[in-house]
Amino acid sequence: MKIVVDAFGSDRGEAVMTEGSVLAVNEDKSVSVIIVGDADVINAELAKYSYDKDRIEVVDAKGKITNNDVPTLAIRQKKDSSLVKALEITKDDPEVGGMVSAGSTGAVLTGAFLKIGRIKGVLRPALCPLLPTLIEDQKVALVDCGANMDCRPEHLEQFALMGASYMKTMGKENPRVALVSVGDEDKKGNELTHEVFARLKKQPINFVGNMESRYALTGKYDVLVTDGFVGNVLLKSIEGTAGMVMKMMKNSITESFWAKIGALFMKKQLKKLKNRMDYQQSGGAVFLGVKKVMVKGHGSSTATSIKNSIFQAKLLAEKNLVKNIEENLEAFGLVVNE
Amino acid sequence: MKIVVDAFGSDRGEAVMTEGSVLAVNEDKSVSVIIVGDADVINAELAKYSYDKDRIEVVDAKGKITNNDVPTLAIRQKKDSSLVKALEITKDDPEVGGMVSAGSTGAVLTGAFLKIGRIKGVLRPALCPLLPTLIEDQKVALVDCGANMDCRPEHLEQFALMGASYMKTMGKENPRVALVSVGDEDKKGNELTHEVFARLKKQPINFVGNMESRYALTGKYDVLVTDGFVGNVLLKSIEGTAGMVMKMMKNSITESFWAKIGALFMKKQLKKLKNRMDYQQSGGAVFLGVKKVMVKGHGSSTATSIKNSIFQAKLLAEKNLVKNIEENLEAFGLVVNE
Repeated sequence: MKIVVDAFGSDRGEAVMTEGSVLAVNEDKSVSVIIVGDADVINAELAKYSYDKDRIEVVDAKGKITNNDVPTLAIRQKKDSSLVKALEITKDDPEVGGMVSAGSTGAVLTGAFLKIGRIKGVLRPALCPLLPTLIEDQKVALVDCGANMDCRPEHLEQFALMGASYMKTMGKENPRVALVSVGDEDKKGNELTHEVFARLKKQPINFVGNMESRYALTGKYDVLVTDGFVGNVLLKSIEGTAGMVMKMMKNSITESFWAKIGALFMKKQLKKLKNRMDYQQSGGAVFLGVKKVMVKGHGSSTATSIKNSIFQAKLLAEKNLVKNIEENLEAFGLVVNE
Repeated sequence: MKIVVDAFGSDRGEAVMTEGSVLAVNEDKSVSVIIVGDADVINAELAKYSYDKDRIEVVDAKGKITNNDVPTLAIRQKKDSSLVKALEITKDDPEVGGMVSAGSTGAVLTGAFLKIGRIKGVLRPALCPLLPTLIEDQKVALVDCGANMDCRPEHLEQFALMGASYMKTMGKENPRVALVSVGDEDKKGNELTHEVFARLKKQPINFVGNMESRYALTGKYDVLVTDGFVGNVLLKSIEGTAGMVMKMMKNSITESFWAKIGALFMKKQLKKLKNRMDYQQSGGAVFLGVKKVMVKGHGSSTATSIKNSIFQAKLLAEKNLVKNIEENLEAFGLVVNE
């Protein structure tokens, strides 16, 4: 299985994308990687490692799309950029199962939408990260976390279905789908969620009802459905609060001699907790609804998390995520004309 | 200054509301409390304490409005309920500065809206809690956190203004007002926030722009403006995540002998951290935009937090919150006809 890696866009530059690719091919003999970006830089990085040279290919692309570019313009005009070339290879090469990028979110999503295209019937592809829960090794998918700002009920209905297909493809049986609302009771919510609630009740998915966001990370749900604005607020407030509690703890430890001693004893556990909350290191967010598997890694991804994103893309491609979504949309009568 | 306390609705019953009232009159000689509820129960509770009998009055009201009641119906029909009687006294007695209730949020807000009424020009009163920040002793106001599900731009414009008036009344000079969005850049957001952003730019408040919810608790902002749906998601995810991190820490401590030893050394600091995150104990959420100060305590409030809510109501009444909001709305040209 071939996975395309866009080498530009990570905060840590081509080095981390290259190292992640090397880690992936060295750990799994069935993975090949095509790294797209500045070949001089990438080859210089590759020279640092030992790996199976048949399974890493470098495609030169000197152009760069950054956070300062307007996504639609950049995708149309910067044809020599690593992102556009990576998207084209991903689309055209039938041996390529998916793609990983840690570049500008707006450009990656717009690029995937324009260059790779939507699965038949999908109105709006949606960005879907996996968050940690209180139950170790159990994740919850949040869809959409920011690709679609203003949504109609039919969009959220499709997000629910795509999220369920995603978690099923990841091996979760009968995933529990919840609608993000302001309480767990059926009647809670706003105009949008009331309409979505009624629609999801009729769908043959395991819809467990409304969810108050206090319970997002309890492990009681597998898929959380919401529009991209609310999803982004939810995601970022989870990140911000976790970071703040850790920081407050750190500050309060330094205030007290005894607490400092205590923290030494707790060091290993505190580190483990920090890693668990740092969900982005276990893989990227998947852009659900486009015709190839697209994994968006965080800008601050480490080589290990890039490796994990490559494995995630491979797994989802092997297990036919795209086909699963397409078949489910059709079976559930959600293929509508725009 | 007289404050009315609705004795029914707390998870801990009349006992905690009565104890909170006693704590308040004993700590501040300028406070009087009118406790409204089942007089037999309240008087039995009062008999346990020593306090200045001239400053606690009990008004009998045997009826109860619970979370299971439909708020509008209950307010209209249950005329003998503690909530309705408390609202009527608050409205009619010119010596009463404000009211505290820990009862059903829906009923308290509906009751205040219907019985006490809105300040001239206010389209929609909004519920506004104070959250802790990374900077000790500095709070941030979130408006609206759940009273108004579907909002128009003019509603959020008024929330911003009422929030700023509130923080100013609390002693914060030139409060920094931010609009909750999906990033800090001006163009980020959805249709609603784009329109609100343009309006707030024109208002003579200290509008500092959009805020990504990751930064909600950093202490860089004094007022966060959003609709009640998003505000509730934000508030509850902050609560849920803080609780989860504390729980994960607790779990990970019990996994390791050395961590258990470490936690003993850190006990005092961990407890302090927990108290700081438990923002509801420092006071209630204020229902901004009604004609008297209305403080909604959490259902799980302790006697100390009820005392704090009484002091909060007194402070806001003394500093003329209602008049400040009214004058500001008028000065800013926000008194519109519905």
